[in-house]
Amino acid sequence: MRTAFLAASAALALAIPLAAQEAAKPTYPAPSEIVAAAPKADWTAIPAEDLLVMTLAPDAEGKPRQVVIQLMPAPFSQGWVHNIRLFARAKWYDNISVNRVQDNYVTQWGDPNYDNPEATGKPKPLPDRLKVVPESDYLTRYSVMSSMNRQTRQMVTRTDPPLAGPRVKDAYGDSTFSNGWPIGIYKPANEPPVLHPTHCYGMVGVGRNYSPDTGSGAELYTVIGHAPRHLDRNIALVGRVIEGMEHLSSLPRGKGELGFYAKDEAAKRTPILTVRVASDLAPSEQPAFEYLSTESETFAAYADAIANRRDPFFITPAGGADICNIRVPVRRVQ
Amino acid sequence: MRTAFLAASAALALAIPLAAQEAAKPTYPAPSEIVAAAPKADWTAIPAEDLLVMTLAPDAEGKPRQVVIQLMPAPFSQGWVHNIRLFARAKWYDNISVNRVQDNYVTQWGDPNYDNPEATGKPKPLPDRLKVVPESDYLTRYSVMSSMNRQTRQMVTRTDPPLAGPRVKDAYGDSTFSNGWPIGIYKPANEPPVLHPTHCYGMVGVGRNYSPDTGSGAELYTVIGHAPRHLDRNIALVGRVIEGMEHLSSLPRGKGELGFYAKDEAAKRTPILTVRVASDLAPSEQPAFEYLSTESETFAAYADAIANRRDPFFITPAGGADICNIRVPVRRVQ
Repeated sequence: MRTAFLAASAALALAIPLAAQEAAKPTYPAPSEIVAAAPKADWTAIPAEDLLVMTLAPDAEGKPRQVVIQLMPAPFSQGWVHNIRLFARAKWYDNISVNRVQDNYVTQWGDPNYDNPEATGKPKPLPDRLKVVPESDYLTRYSVMSSMNRQTRQMVTRTDPPLAGPRVKDAYGDSTFSNGWPIGIYKPANEPPVLHPTHCYGMVGVGRNYSPDTGSGAELYTVIGHAPRHLDRNIALVGRVIEGMEHLSSLPRGKGELGFYAKDEAAKRTPILTVRVASDLAPSEQPAFEYLSTESETFAAYADAIANRRDPFFITPAGGADICNIRVPVRRVQ
Repeated sequence: MRTAFLAASAALALAIPLAAQEAAKPTYPAPSEIVAAAPKADWTAIPAEDLLVMTLAPDAEGKPRQVVIQLMPAPFSQGWVHNIRLFARAKWYDNISVNRVQDNYVTQWGDPNYDNPEATGKPKPLPDRLKVVPESDYLTRYSVMSSMNRQTRQMVTRTDPPLAGPRVKDAYGDSTFSNGWPIGIYKPANEPPVLHPTHCYGMVGVGRNYSPDTGSGAELYTVIGHAPRHLDRNIALVGRVIEGMEHLSSLPRGKGELGFYAKDEAAKRTPILTVRVASDLAPSEQPAFEYLSTESETFAAYADAIANRRDPFFITPAGGADICNIRVPVRRVQ
């Protein structure tokens, strides 16, 4: 899918001399081919309660723009996720806008008049019953259970949440995948390790002010550049964009402070018409998605193929991959 | 510069209770503040011969769009860099276009009819005197020299090119900086280590077909998403975008194969009017840039601050950074 760089047309493949084709090295599937061959059982449905459907104003050509966000499941960031469903159900997100687009960093949306250095009006009041989430919730504890396998008579260890996906070591420490999400394993000195989601491309986080503020969920952003992993454990991550990312990543960059649209370019703010929890939509309008189980053998093979590209375009494999280059496959289902 | 997430207005800072301000922890400068305080001697001028000025057609509002690319200096990728200057001086790049924009990957430009699965016409002939560069040039050897410091009477080791910048270890191995560029240090089995540039955001590379083709420089791309480091050592890197990146990163994504604009969206191809080597322009039209020396103490402090953010927005520092998150500061000078 993303292997050939200039072109990958059939005509080009045929242009390779036949002798070279015959003497070819053993062929390895590309990561995309491994995913395409995954058995149906390796795919896990995403609950409609975990999907947000965000409808932007149509583009300059009048074409509709829809973004689908998958919210993080328990045990991660659930205080903020609670608030986000509450904002959506109170229709508080309706008629807000994209107010900040900073190149190689984030696209951020919310009330254009709330805590915006380029505000042009008064902020709208927040809904009731919002949770104030403590900073400690940036980190998630996990439990370890050991039991005897009666057949093999060997001790088996498992964790809750599961941490049985491929392990990754990169500049930011150890990480893995759990229930379809990239998860860092942070080891504070003299304390048990704890978990946190990682700031990869397309992940959605909660804008906040200076500590101890952790943000309510009124301001959300998504990563549109190289993973800003220094934000891990410093800001809440609550989900990821699983469809329509291009509607957020290709917006004009803001010229104001931090990439906010300056006062004289307020017209560039993309209006957000509605944000709905998918389970609140009529059944015929509910989108459905599934992700490749990160605990499956297919995912392990996929991660290995990404770290060691041996499909025809490649000459020397990298021998490794950071957590954000191993993107969890998500697909729409009918 | 990029620290505060929601807003960083003076009004907000004043809203923090005075008691909290007084009891503040020792303050650390943000990476951007370290760069702003760098002495003039830490900045190195970029030769005009190494600057490409690419003028795109004006945007929908009629505003001019200019992109400046810095070409890599010796000893890296000089065969392709030779070709790129030759293409520019033959005016071969004039009236080509951006033909591919793949989200979280690359924006690619060239002759829309050359090796493009969505081609709508015939390719234009290539100029004469292009070099055919071998795959071995993806890698660069370096030499090590030892000498005695007569004052301290200690042995001093230096390399050519210099590798005296901060060292980084990430999922892709060891890397550092040399003369202003991010450089991987690759250690093949039973052979001396070799160098190669790294595929970071904004880096510019040479499109190619299947090996042993290495590309001529007719097709160029820049990285617009998370660093695709698996391309290191598999494709030539020849430079980086140092101004106007937003004109390439915010373009509409292509719906064709690999993000090429499909035949029915050929109108989305952004025309490239001209590409000039800056030293060929009239002196009054030559842009001038300088980079923060990666061998300076300022750069070492900057890299450390990125890996260990302690400026006020942050709660827990990352304790590390990958090579692509330590972006070499480049600035325009008059």
